[in-house]
Amino acid sequence: MKLIVQKFGGSSVANAERIWNVARIVTDTYKNGANVVVVVSAQGDTTDDLIAKAHEIDPNPSKREMDMLLSTGEQISISLLAMAISKLGYPVISLTGRQAGFLTDSNHSKARIKKIDTERLEKELDQRKIVVVAGFQGINRYDDITTLGRGGSDTSAVALAAELKADLCQIYTDVDGVYTADPRLVKNAKKLEEISFDEMLELASCGAQVLHNRSVEMAKKYNVNLEVISSLEDKPGTKIKEVTKMEKLLIKGVAKDDDIVRISVIGLPDKPGIAFKIFSLLAAKKINVDIILQSVGRTGTKDISFTVPVDSKDAALEVLEEAKDTLGEYTVETDTDVTKVSIVGAGMQSNPGVAAKMFEALYEADINIAMISTSEIKISVLIKKDLGIKAMNALSDAFIK
Amino acid sequence: MKLIVQKFGGSSVANAERIWNVARIVTDTYKNGANVVVVVSAQGDTTDDLIAKAHEIDPNPSKREMDMLLSTGEQISISLLAMAISKLGYPVISLTGRQAGFLTDSNHSKARIKKIDTERLEKELDQRKIVVVAGFQGINRYDDITTLGRGGSDTSAVALAAELKADLCQIYTDVDGVYTADPRLVKNAKKLEEISFDEMLELASCGAQVLHNRSVEMAKKYNVNLEVISSLEDKPGTKIKEVTKMEKLLIKGVAKDDDIVRISVIGLPDKPGIAFKIFSLLAAKKINVDIILQSVGRTGTKDISFTVPVDSKDAALEVLEEAKDTLGEYTVETDTDVTKVSIVGAGMQSNPGVAAKMFEALYEADINIAMISTSEIKISVLIKKDLGIKAMNALSDAFIK
Repeated sequence: MKLIVQKFGGSSVANAERIWNVARIVTDTYKNGANVVVVVSAQGDTTDDLIAKAHEIDPNPSKREMDMLLSTGEQISISLLAMAISKLGYPVISLTGRQAGFLTDSNHSKARIKKIDTERLEKELDQRKIVVVAGFQGINRYDDITTLGRGGSDTSAVALAAELKADLCQIYTDVDGVYTADPRLVKNAKKLEEISFDEMLELASCGAQVLHNRSVEMAKKYNVNLEVISSLEDKPGTKIKEVTKMEKLLIKGVAKDDDIVRISVIGLPDKPGIAFKIFSLLAAKKINVDIILQSVGRTGTKDISFTVPVDSKDAALEVLEEAKDTLGEYTVETDTDVTKVSIVGAGMQSNPGVAAKMFEALYEADINIAMISTSEIKISVLIKKDLGIKAMNALSDAFIK
Repeated sequence: MKLIVQKFGGSSVANAERIWNVARIVTDTYKNGANVVVVVSAQGDTTDDLIAKAHEIDPNPSKREMDMLLSTGEQISISLLAMAISKLGYPVISLTGRQAGFLTDSNHSKARIKKIDTERLEKELDQRKIVVVAGFQGINRYDDITTLGRGGSDTSAVALAAELKADLCQIYTDVDGVYTADPRLVKNAKKLEEISFDEMLELASCGAQVLHNRSVEMAKKYNVNLEVISSLEDKPGTKIKEVTKMEKLLIKGVAKDDDIVRISVIGLPDKPGIAFKIFSLLAAKKINVDIILQSVGRTGTKDISFTVPVDSKDAALEVLEEAKDTLGEYTVETDTDVTKVSIVGAGMQSNPGVAAKMFEALYEADINIAMISTSEIKISVLIKKDLGIKAMNALSDAFIK
């Protein structure tokens, strides 16, 4: 019998009406002869409400107690959804993360799944029950409740699909699939029928917010058939898999990431190993460096520019201040008026001239490029923040026909 | 080291301010050198809100899913209270009913505690942590969450105190102890310093609502030192124990129960065993019969009157209608315009004349008695509903000096 894992986010179960909608999707799948495991997030604003309650007590509460608190959100969702499915006349049971067998490490608030013990879950499936599982949560080896952090419910769903060797893992959202660009920003954005894991990963790390990287990485690792699909409209979504069929689209996506700041280190002594020292100090503080540009400065010195996420800015500046003791004097400048615009597509590997075409499109739109970074299936450029949407449209017009 | 179990109800943890108040009471006890286990209920209206959410989906939801839903209420309370205690600088950990070791039967929504496995809880106490436990909940042998039903958190606290052999179990409420009568109804109601388990049980079953019978029964069975005390004012509460010291009070309480209806069966054939048949039929339907009065009716017949709780009225009338097939013809009348007023006190066992004094007080207040029922430590009378409060005051004036 086919086994399908379906994941529904917080907005899909936000109220009774939406829960009925989910119950109908789930029972339709079941009726068609599949076994169904449903993974759900907390309802709409529940998590925010719980966080507000905690912050009223302590703005910086114990993470262990925070996980105890937040995990109630999904527990509410699973019981309500199970009630709706049962009312429609189908056999159903809800399971907390623990009951579904999610064992994690002890990193409260961003735990990693170590193992899923699916014995009970499979016993319920064997009785042809629809099993509704609380996403985002598990327990550690001390029997304490943990949560998986951002994108946690997607990760729960993909991990369960991998462990149960499900035929398909459907991520239901309020958009109807993966687009070549955010349709709210780019006029001619198109929905993709298929996209590869690698392309999806690059798109996610370039600012597209459909799926969290962690779940895509896991799906790639265990080769889980993923589909992003709308919970509100009945139409095909986007399939995400290892290898996609040939498509005429040279690139699969145009993305923009505003969460970026450029830091320039000017007047560094021109000695070997100086870049290595700076970036290893940043790495030691777990600061994620993205685009790097090194250039020759005034006589006997060099300049290094790089980008980091906005919330790493202060930590990076601190590292650079402390490093002066060993590296000598230099100036540090920051620029937050920047955005990173990227194009992603496996097709560019075998098509020379993609970069040239990108730069041409930006030139014709009168957009100046400050930094460039490339990978095998991605080209990113750093430009002025207020030109971001214009650049996305120019690139979409050039590449997406 | 002394071990104290403290239980706080929903109104005591209804908001951040109240939670701080509870945290201060708990940490004061801990600071004075005791180990402290705290049992809490769901915050204020949380349970009602969750029930409303469920009823939006299904007015009659699965009890297993209802327990999954409602148990989140206490889980929210324990994490918030643990955050507050921690913020005050004390070591603390919250435990769900399951983590605290509550194993129950599978009677969802009104489960009975079968066993408490306190291994983890005692490990946390050994580390001098304050342990905050979710009341009202446990798991059954299938690892499903159960709830204990009405008065559940009191029962959790008393059961834990019994299992841990605690020195004291304090039930914190928004009243400051057990009164001889409801102070909102009776002018000269007095707070009791002490009351015996048996007296408390009779008072509870006569309509006093301070403690649920189940927890008092359990405290009596395991001889747990109980205290009812105010969470809002710092003053001594009422101690409930096996034997109380001699007090000048002949009776400990005056209570009123409006949840009562009188059913009269008139014109029954005057044959042996007829009363037995009627009451065994009622018992088979689990209808709780309270006061019974039998009298001789017209020639060759007799009349039987009895009282049942209001929500058993329809079931009782059905039983009486069906019984006509075997018992012959009779008339059935019901009267809902009645209330039961009781006086309770172990002292009446050794003091003849208490009943006479009660009837005299009611006579002088011009109150007519319809039915009378007595136990070793209780006398109840059935009177017109609108005279209930007048009767309570008359009895309080006569007995409570």
